[in-house]
Amino acid sequence: MAMNRMMECVPNFSEGRDLQKIEKILDCFRGRDGVKLLDYSRDEDHNRLVVTTVGEPEPLADAVVDAMGTAAQLIDMTRHQGQHPRMGATDVVPFIPVKNVTAEDAVALSKEVGRRAWEEHGIPVFLYEKSASAPNRENLASVRKGQFEGMAEKMKLPEWKPDFGEDAPHPTAGVTAVGARMPLCAYNVNLATSDLTIADRIAKKVRHIGGGLRYCKAMGVALADRGIVQVSMNLTDYTKTSIYSAFEMVAMEARRYGVNVVGSEVIGLVPQKALIDCAEYYLQIENFSMDQILENRIAE
Amino acid sequence: MAMNRMMECVPNFSEGRDLQKIEKILDCFRGRDGVKLLDYSRDEDHNRLVVTTVGEPEPLADAVVDAMGTAAQLIDMTRHQGQHPRMGATDVVPFIPVKNVTAEDAVALSKEVGRRAWEEHGIPVFLYEKSASAPNRENLASVRKGQFEGMAEKMKLPEWKPDFGEDAPHPTAGVTAVGARMPLCAYNVNLATSDLTIADRIAKKVRHIGGGLRYCKAMGVALADRGIVQVSMNLTDYTKTSIYSAFEMVAMEARRYGVNVVGSEVIGLVPQKALIDCAEYYLQIENFSMDQILENRIAE
Repeated sequence: MAMNRMMECVPNFSEGRDLQKIEKILDCFRGRDGVKLLDYSRDEDHNRLVVTTVGEPEPLADAVVDAMGTAAQLIDMTRHQGQHPRMGATDVVPFIPVKNVTAEDAVALSKEVGRRAWEEHGIPVFLYEKSASAPNRENLASVRKGQFEGMAEKMKLPEWKPDFGEDAPHPTAGVTAVGARMPLCAYNVNLATSDLTIADRIAKKVRHIGGGLRYCKAMGVALADRGIVQVSMNLTDYTKTSIYSAFEMVAMEARRYGVNVVGSEVIGLVPQKALIDCAEYYLQIENFSMDQILENRIAE
Repeated sequence: MAMNRMMECVPNFSEGRDLQKIEKILDCFRGRDGVKLLDYSRDEDHNRLVVTTVGEPEPLADAVVDAMGTAAQLIDMTRHQGQHPRMGATDVVPFIPVKNVTAEDAVALSKEVGRRAWEEHGIPVFLYEKSASAPNRENLASVRKGQFEGMAEKMKLPEWKPDFGEDAPHPTAGVTAVGARMPLCAYNVNLATSDLTIADRIAKKVRHIGGGLRYCKAMGVALADRGIVQVSMNLTDYTKTSIYSAFEMVAMEARRYGVNVVGSEVIGLVPQKALIDCAEYYLQIENFSMDQILENRIAE
């Protein structure tokens, strides 16, 4: 499928058990020009469905709004039970720029989808992350605090008036958080030691809250079967905090303990540019364009 | 265009002046399922057309055989004049593996196209490069030596009997070389000196014929406007001689002269994997799969 502009969306729905309902939600992303259903996973304990989909911005917005309406029809939050915190039939809808679209485009699309969710389906929406209208709405956990059962009361507070819709949740579909974020890179660096305290100490220096890299979350993890430890990281904006910066900073901190890096791991999906940026850095490449990659020329 | 398996082909035709004929040849690659015309360039002095196209192997073979027939109808080699050496209306047809196809697949496809060029259009074919049936046929310049005008005599020699067809050129379309090669990476490393002899000496150590890297051709080049020099390289099989190996070996040799690397350049198109390999090397990534790249999952 040739997509010139490509946005990713990973909507979470509050249904992880009823396969008929799950299929009806997934169908909203199938057989549409300019939209591709990449992956989905459901969890019975969480009673939750996570969908990974990509598309041209406008067809993708249509599919998401459609799925939000379908979820509102099928899922009754007054009866929903599950381990994962949730506040709506469609719980959270993050848009992630992938190709030839910017973070600003993702913010604009999230606002369009939020507005349409209210206008077309009567679902109130909070904008969160990069789309947030106030600092206290950036963090999803803060927005969702109180969950479905506490929303009627929370939304009466002036600081929790929704960005779209009335000051009350949809009676059965609740509230949805819609926003824009950058693609996440899950990246781990493995160390030649079995001492977990070393990985923990390095993690604390490398991550943002410890004074380290702005878009890096990190923790120490023991790999018991290999007898080593790793610094396990989430890079929340690889365009600002690069994979090579995280790698080099872990190696630098490890030197203090006389510990070598034995390898690193990219977990799950990663945007092409996150790795090409590393090749460009180490090879000191001048004036490279992503259009020079043969496969990218073909995909156009 | 979604292509699961992807082969590249860069056929050269002996017509660089007559736009009507050129368009008819290009039309063979247009509007075909599973084939994409990526680029073409014609040169009036060389009187030559170079086409860059990609496709699923079978549709691509059909397009190429079709274009060879069209070129044979339109181009009369007995009247052809141009600066570039040539022996056929379709002069040379290299197949290059790009995605989910191997060098062996490219060899097999070149043999199929060679056979069909003879059977369907009466054009005798030499297999060259990785498809060569004898060591003296690997090098294109050796195969083409004597050019169109000398082929009738050359092909009577037992060692120059064609791989497909009779021991004589097509009367007007001549002979074609068909073969498989790996994608070429044109890659230059820039040095902090204006002394061209240093770049030349490094080039001689890095390249294959000087005892250097097996799939590396290199020469020194002066960048007069920047007051520096570069080692200009062609990497003829990046899966064996990596970009990072070439970069590190130039840097290593430059140290002998106290000269630093100031940067490097990727010229033209490069396969994605050639750069991802470099990120993997420098980041010491363990167990990476190209399917982890988001864009590759979408292209499937």
